Amino acid sequence: MNIVILAAGTGKRMRSALPKVLHPLAGRPLLSHVIDTARTLKPTRLVVVVGHGGEAVRAAVAAPDVLFAVQEQQLGTGHAVQQALPLLDPMVSTLVLYGDVPLTRASTLKRLVDSAAEGCYGVLTVTLDDPSGYGRIVRDQTGCVVRIVEQKDATPEQLRIAEINTGIVVTPTAQLGMWLASLKNDNAQGEFYLTDVVERAIEAGFEVVTAQPDEEWETLGVNSKQQLAELERIHQHNVADDLLAAGVTLADPARIDVRGTLECGRDVSIDVNCVFEGRVTLADNVTIGPNCVIRDATLGAGTRVEAFTHIEGAEIGANVGLGPYARLRPGASLQDESHVGNFVEVKNAVIGHGSKAGHLTYIGDADVGARVNIGAGTITCNYDGANKHRTIIEDDVFVGSDTQFVAPVRVGRGVTIAAGTTIWKDVAENVLVLNDKTQTSKTGFVRPTKKKS
Amino acid sequence: MNIVILAAGTGKRMRSALPKVLHPLAGRPLLSHVIDTARTLKPTRLVVVVGHGGEAVRAAVAAPDVLFAVQEQQLGTGHAVQQALPLLDPMVSTLVLYGDVPLTRASTLKRLVDSAAEGCYGVLTVTLDDPSGYGRIVRDQTGCVVRIVEQKDATPEQLRIAEINTGIVVTPTAQLGMWLASLKNDNAQGEFYLTDVVERAIEAGFEVVTAQPDEEWETLGVNSKQQLAELERIHQHNVADDLLAAGVTLADPARIDVRGTLECGRDVSIDVNCVFEGRVTLADNVTIGPNCVIRDATLGAGTRVEAFTHIEGAEIGANVGLGPYARLRPGASLQDESHVGNFVEVKNAVIGHGSKAGHLTYIGDADVGARVNIGAGTITCNYDGANKHRTIIEDDVFVGSDTQFVAPVRVGRGVTIAAGTTIWKDVAENVLVLNDKTQTSKTGFVRPTKKKS
Amino acid sequence: MNIVILAAGTGKRMRSALPKVLHPLAGRPLLSHVIDTARTLKPTRLVVVVGHGGEAVRAAVAAPDVLFAVQEQQLGTGHAVQQALPLLDPMVSTLVLYGDVPLTRASTLKRLVDSAAEGCYGVLTVTLDDPSGYGRIVRDQTGCVVRIVEQKDATPEQLRIAEINTGIVVTPTAQLGMWLASLKNDNAQGEFYLTDVVERAIEAGFEVVTAQPDEEWETLGVNSKQQLAELERIHQHNVADDLLAAGVTLADPARIDVRGTLECGRDVSIDVNCVFEGRVTLADNVTIGPNCVIRDATLGAGTRVEAFTHIEGAEIGANVGLGPYARLRPGASLQDESHVGNFVEVKNAVIGHGSKAGHLTYIGDADVGARVNIGAGTITCNYDGANKHRTIIEDDVFVGSDTQFVAPVRVGRGVTIAAGTTIWKDVAENVLVLNDKTQTSKTGFVRPTKKKS
Repeated sequence: MNIVILAAGTGKRMRSALPKVLHPLAGRPLLSHVIDTARTLKPTRLVVVVGHGGEAVRAAVAAPDVLFAVQEQQLGTGHAVQQALPLLDPMVSTLVLYGDVPLTRASTLKRLVDSAAEGCYGVLTVTLDDPSGYGRIVRDQTGCVVRIVEQKDATPEQLRIAEINTGIVVTPTAQLGMWLASLKNDNAQGEFYLTDVVERAIEAGFEVVTAQPDEEWETLGVNSKQQLAELERIHQHNVADDLLAAGVTLADPARIDVRGTLECGRDVSIDVNCVFEGRVTLADNVTIGPNCVIRDATLGAGTRVEAFTHIEGAEIGANVGLGPYARLRPGASLQDESHVGNFVEVKNAVIGHGSKAGHLTYIGDADVGARVNIGAGTITCNYDGANKHRTIIEDDVFVGSDTQFVAPVRVGRGVTIAAGTTIWKDVAENVLVLNDKTQTSKTGFVRPTKKKS
Repeated sequence: MNIVILAAGTGKRMRSALPKVLHPLAGRPLLSHVIDTARTLKPTRLVVVVGHGGEAVRAAVAAPDVLFAVQEQQLGTGHAVQQALPLLDPMVSTLVLYGDVPLTRASTLKRLVDSAAEGCYGVLTVTLDDPSGYGRIVRDQTGCVVRIVEQKDATPEQLRIAEINTGIVVTPTAQLGMWLASLKNDNAQGEFYLTDVVERAIEAGFEVVTAQPDEEWETLGVNSKQQLAELERIHQHNVADDLLAAGVTLADPARIDVRGTLECGRDVSIDVNCVFEGRVTLADNVTIGPNCVIRDATLGAGTRVEAFTHIEGAEIGANVGLGPYARLRPGASLQDESHVGNFVEVKNAVIGHGSKAGHLTYIGDADVGARVNIGAGTITCNYDGANKHRTIIEDDVFVGSDTQFVAPVRVGRGVTIAAGTTIWKDVAENVLVLNDKTQTSKTGFVRPTKKKS
Repeated sequence: MNIVILAAGTGKRMRSALPKVLHPLAGRPLLSHVIDTARTLKPTRLVVVVGHGGEAVRAAVAAPDVLFAVQEQQLGTGHAVQQALPLLDPMVSTLVLYGDVPLTRASTLKRLVDSAAEGCYGVLTVTLDDPSGYGRIVRDQTGCVVRIVEQKDATPEQLRIAEINTGIVVTPTAQLGMWLASLKNDNAQGEFYLTDVVERAIEAGFEVVTAQPDEEWETLGVNSKQQLAELERIHQHNVADDLLAAGVTLADPARIDVRGTLECGRDVSIDVNCVFEGRVTLADNVTIGPNCVIRDATLGAGTRVEAFTHIEGAEIGANVGLGPYARLRPGASLQDESHVGNFVEVKNAVIGHGSKAGHLTYIGDADVGARVNIGAGTITCNYDGANKHRTIIEDDVFVGSDTQFVAPVRVGRGVTIAAGTTIWKDVAENVLVLNDKTQTSKTGFVRPTKKKS
């Protein structure tokens, strides 16, 4: 089977500089959703017809298995498919999809393709409570499709037909070029409509078969930001349903956003208003508190994430405690039983087994060993204005509060650092290290007084 | 046209010390919404009738174009309008609105006023699926309004009438005093009802015309916190719809709150659960991450705001990076390409072009030049216990981590500050500045052991 | 009256290691909700039948008034009740409830019990739009219940009956043992069904009475995470409704979660997306900003909580200002007029009247007096690696920014601490205290340059 995805439209109603099919749904372009679904059908050829913003569209979805056809002028869906024709295998049939109809399920398309398997012309139809505006599927007394009639051309009787054309069709390919070439654009828009091909197929004696999706939303397209938001919510609702069915506890299925893949072990619990992006894996018994943002991260079993935690590109072990207000940036690697607390940022750093950084700390470009206690206000000074340097803190170090590590620097195992110390030279194992300080009291100090302003 | 807004009610069901009409919807008093709508109709006189909590109401909405009438005792809507009469121009008609019905659109009121233009008596009516409890609009065979009949006085046949009285009327003014004076309070509440004036108008031979709003919610009033919450949601839904129609991308239209005005350029994207207050302007290509709170701020083109950012009273340039967990307070002015990162607070300070304060920093009362790198843990000590002082950091300064600036202090351009430095004297250009420190290691230190508690 | 609560089911569809009845709704086990409701009916015996995960269930709900019966094998609801029989008072009737049906109101159960008061057999029934799948209540021409017929055994006529059996029954106890013993398990599941007892009662000449709940959701059970999420939302909706009715202002009733008890004074206002857990009390005029998490805390009148504040186990006085991004941990005690600002953590510490800690600070294990100003970046070094120690800061101290208190340490009243000071010895009253420091400038410093990587 060939698959052609129409992705050339301007999407004027989106009021955006971005081509319509590149607007993100669940964090990825509309078109990518359609391509993903198409791939599950294992097409022999997969052709995307680009036009408006074509270069951007190509760049966004380029892949070895994706061919591109160019529709220079947007002269209608029939004209668009015509541009793809030279790239198609004429011996197998062709499924036509739309880059702005992102939620059609593979199982629905499979059903359509199967029902049209014998070289029939297949149309995906759907029955609507309110079919107004759509092309109606007209059948004869035996139930055979004889026509698709547009709203404006329909008789009062035809207007009462609730079964409508979704635009998704599967067609024999050998005859398709001839049929497309015979289309007329004598309509209000002056466009060549793919819809009209069904009449050519019928004239040519092909049987027209239909299939229907399980859900009406599978056929919804995006023409405006309102529709984009609606489909986003439908998609998120579906994702939440799948998570619940898999046994995940969601405090509120209407307040979780998954943009990518979220894999969950057993007895995972996710509180309200969390956002997951990219590839996130939560092992057994992970709990995520309210208002967390987690992107491209792996969390080990039993790890607890408190409210307002922000994670990106991090690998987190088992039984780790995070947050509230923990911020893990790319390259953060937290080993089992470690703890990163409030107002603590970790970037490109290992936090060893059982080590703790509880408060107001920045650990960047560092290797922190096991059982290290990092006091509040600790800062790795990793940047000298030009380059980044590494801080190495070995096992069992006690870092007093408000310590600065001027990297590159290494602190040996078992060292105790006094509070308020600046470390700029390596420290041998097991010593106490400090900056010599006085504590001087002066009497007679007079506090400033409030000036008139 | 005169406009009278009734705002004297007690609002007992609100269970609040605040007068009902001052309860906020989208951050502003209910009454202010009604006054705003009234103003768009350009009334010759705009009279607010106050009573319960009158002083607070006056103070909240005082303006040169707003006149106040006082209803000392709450004796009904007819009585309330009577108090406004001396302030009205008898030569033009009078539109009566309600301070607790905040969402009526100007276009609806315009339609009512226009239909009553020829000196008719106009009633805004609405047709409800369930009209129970409301006064029904009784018409004769020719469709003329002949009466408004209250629920309790209605015949079974009248109870089936679905068109009800909203209470919003436009009336000739010259006769209004006479009509109001003739009202009776022989009802259960012992009140004089404005509704009854329609009968006087009909008796006097005036034609009664009606108009209907486009949306049922335009006529909803607030008598309880439940109703307040419902109208808040309707309003926010409308705001979200308008943003979507203008091309703004909203991750979830049900999870955005706008309390004031939000102006957006092209290709603005707003993630879930953000709150906007006051006057906020987002230029082209601004993206707002989840869970942000933004109040009275301007954000330049291409600026990216990450999750959990809190902005108030700030002016932000183009291509600025903010957050996550950035906190900008009034007087923060961030120039183009600057960056304010996690756990950083900026108040009454300029951050120059391309300057960065990435972590755990407080910049208050400061002027930071261009290309300044502010290390983690930097603090401007702007307050001496009595007065605030200014820190000036010139272009190209490198501020090492954990630096304190004891203001007032000036650091010349190109200066490098070592980590952990307290600066209390001005620093000349291009030098390296530091506090002299030792780094001393002591052997033989024995760590404390856990005491039994 | 006896009450038996069936809590032995496996809950396989929950896909969890946790026994079904222990899954939390609003933060507490499903079973605890049922026990709470049961207690309001003041039963003479309260028996929980445990089975699957019985030990965990016992441990979770153990109380002096709760008896446990064990159902070793899950052989059906009739069998389950049989296990409880020896613990029941045969002289009074027995109400059977379900540990996975958490939202039945006490008033509904009271109505059922009252209607069955004369030794009748009572069944709680509900009329559904779509009764498919449920046991239908079959009545004779006089309206007397004659049977409960399961879906699969029902005639087409019976399938049209919309009144269904909820499973909640009240039964005479003296005969119950005999009836239960006579049950057959000749059904598809091979189980003994409590439902079948109604036939025994009718055969024995007992009148069967019915009662209905006010709300359909009162009879909903939890068999999957989807249903758990649905009931959670119904419960939270009810809680929000109660708060609104009590006069609390909620920005969005669909975005508040209360897991425990939330008591509010007059004119309390709660912004979007807040979570309350445990026992929280908000006095008059408290305002809670968006995205706050508050657990086990008392907030005094007029206190204002800004966005992103996280409170647990804290006692907070009147007119306190908190946040944004304030984090109060257990044992935080904030006196009137105090202020804890952004990125500030307070744990097990008193903040005295009018004292302020505005930025980037950790106050743990401390007693801070009145009118103390705590500069940004202040840290109490309360932990020496083994034990926690206390910091005492007396009234009217001015703590310069970036001060560290190495506890145990005491600072006398009226002391002024210079910025960037490490305090490790007690400080007498009214002095200025500092570490002696130089501020040295070096010329000729050459900044590092970017290395190729």
